[in-house]
Amino acid sequence: MSVRASESPQFRAHAWITILAGGVGSRFWPASTPEAPKPLLNLASDRPLLQDTLERAQALAPAERISILAGPHLVGPFSRAIPSLTSASFWVEPAARGTAPVLTWAAWKAVQHDPDAVLVSLHSDHVIDPTAAFVERVNTAIDVAQNEGMLVTIGAVPDRPEIGYGYLQPGEPLPTSPAARRVAAFHEKPDAETAERYLEDGFLWNTGIFIWRASVLLEEVRAHAPEIEPALHHLEAGNEDAFFAEVKPVSIDVAVLERSSRVACLASTFRWDDVGTWDALSRTRPTDAQGNVVAGAGHVVEGHDNIIWSDDERLIVWGLDDVVAVRANGVTVVFPKHRAPELKTLLNALDSDEATR
Amino acid sequence: MSVRASESPQFRAHAWITILAGGVGSRFWPASTPEAPKPLLNLASDRPLLQDTLERAQALAPAERISILAGPHLVGPFSRAIPSLTSASFWVEPAARGTAPVLTWAAWKAVQHDPDAVLVSLHSDHVIDPTAAFVERVNTAIDVAQNEGMLVTIGAVPDRPEIGYGYLQPGEPLPTSPAARRVAAFHEKPDAETAERYLEDGFLWNTGIFIWRASVLLEEVRAHAPEIEPALHHLEAGNEDAFFAEVKPVSIDVAVLERSSRVACLASTFRWDDVGTWDALSRTRPTDAQGNVVAGAGHVVEGHDNIIWSDDERLIVWGLDDVVAVRANGVTVVFPKHRAPELKTLLNALDSDEATR
Repeated sequence: MSVRASESPQFRAHAWITILAGGVGSRFWPASTPEAPKPLLNLASDRPLLQDTLERAQALAPAERISILAGPHLVGPFSRAIPSLTSASFWVEPAARGTAPVLTWAAWKAVQHDPDAVLVSLHSDHVIDPTAAFVERVNTAIDVAQNEGMLVTIGAVPDRPEIGYGYLQPGEPLPTSPAARRVAAFHEKPDAETAERYLEDGFLWNTGIFIWRASVLLEEVRAHAPEIEPALHHLEAGNEDAFFAEVKPVSIDVAVLERSSRVACLASTFRWDDVGTWDALSRTRPTDAQGNVVAGAGHVVEGHDNIIWSDDERLIVWGLDDVVAVRANGVTVVFPKHRAPELKTLLNALDSDEATR
Repeated sequence: MSVRASESPQFRAHAWITILAGGVGSRFWPASTPEAPKPLLNLASDRPLLQDTLERAQALAPAERISILAGPHLVGPFSRAIPSLTSASFWVEPAARGTAPVLTWAAWKAVQHDPDAVLVSLHSDHVIDPTAAFVERVNTAIDVAQNEGMLVTIGAVPDRPEIGYGYLQPGEPLPTSPAARRVAAFHEKPDAETAERYLEDGFLWNTGIFIWRASVLLEEVRAHAPEIEPALHHLEAGNEDAFFAEVKPVSIDVAVLERSSRVACLASTFRWDDVGTWDALSRTRPTDAQGNVVAGAGHVVEGHDNIIWSDDERLIVWGLDDVVAVRANGVTVVFPKHRAPELKTLLNALDSDEATR
């Protein structure tokens, strides 16, 4: 098969890509549903986030080394939305137990195929641009993971004092891979004042994009994660269900990264957004001259900086600014953009209104 | 037939009721449609305005002397919405030519039945409360019309400097019917400053509710309305279509009331609203403790003084105040309440947006 150079990226040997697509989430209610979870929403363009993620993955490794990590209920919706997916595209999680169990399991599966596997763990619902910078940075991270035996995470360079993300505090550069630095500390989502200080101090956003030799992750799990280590023998015995049943639900940050001394970070050279809430669309989707994001059958007359999302019906905002208006799945909701991060309080209020009827 | 006293109002002899239901209007878009024009909307309660109007009419005259004046296209929608209506409930307008031709035609029809007929002309889409005060006032007006041979109009007592209504300037009381006063002048919709002065000066809102002997109206049409007078012979010849074809479109105010010296007014003793625009629902529909009007499947969480109208689907406004949100007939529109009177500018903007696509 002859391939033009521009279509033939220099894949790193041993690179395996996993794409986390487990969560359902209600932060994009009423658009997100069990049948159309966030990775299938067109939050950055006119196609699903998952499809963008797959394209980035395909620039890093051949299809047979790319796996979507998702529960069995998502195989159908994902396959219908992206017809190029096959059953071989999925590593189906027996149970949702947080990121530490699933990434441990993924590492264990990868080493069965390739003892030298380097895993690149992506999320299915991030916005990343441009792809070329992303590929360059991940390939550098693969080199660091291979050469240094470190757990490498990509830290995004902040452009604002965001309170919605966790932060990484970079430490000393690695002597033999000076592009990478040790992670001195992980910090939870800050308040506004702390976020300003993090921005000044050069902290990075914790993107949750990880690169590590699968064997190194398994070593660090054995060394630091009592929530998981006692269950590893089930994987060795080929009993994946028993592994997921026995592990304690825990995130990879808590179980391994915050405990291990082998954690490094690389600063991003690309724009990154995890599109956490409706207001993020003002950053991730194209806007009109008045700063409005208009998706589907939305429409704005005399208004600026709105986000209008309608799956099929006409939804018109007239003479209002800075609002989110969404119609999806037979429900319409309108609210001020600045309240988007509190969407859960709306859902709770609706639940209790229902309950009192 | 025996009737209990409470069900047997003292109908005035010769009283005939007509109900104007001609206009379609776009002021309640997207709820109002050709199939569901404004009189069929539940703008004051959970039933159509027309049904409330019919009940008031039935307190003034027996059913056989109550007629809805409407175009042929409205007979079907009205009859489906209000099953008690029959073909005898309608005087079907051959053509829509403004209020002067249709009321002249109605007067001519009434005198064929009863040379002493007194016509009470109501609108199908007003909100009036309480009915008892309305009935008392209209019956007084009937007495004035019969005794004085005047064209009587009901003027509503303003409770605010409304710029959306025309005004009546009351003049001298009638010597033999002192409850009524001559109308010194009619005034168009004022600007805000003028409306304040009208309020101070005791002007009345022009309700468009008229009471007159049919024969007196015909006399005054002959005397003052060159737009209509030359066509009257068609009615005498039994050719209604020719009458409507020949008359010039004109309102009864312009053609007769502003020209005649036989015009009197009675001040209302009831609350009156012509529910001209979406924001009027804050006055006409019940509100919750936060001042929200919530109709159909609407819902408000943390917001006050909103108007939410949804025909069937959930429509939720969260954290916003003083907005109108309407979903009807597959279209949703959201706008600030104070812009409701300008709805036509939105429709024009949508039309031109369509045209440029």
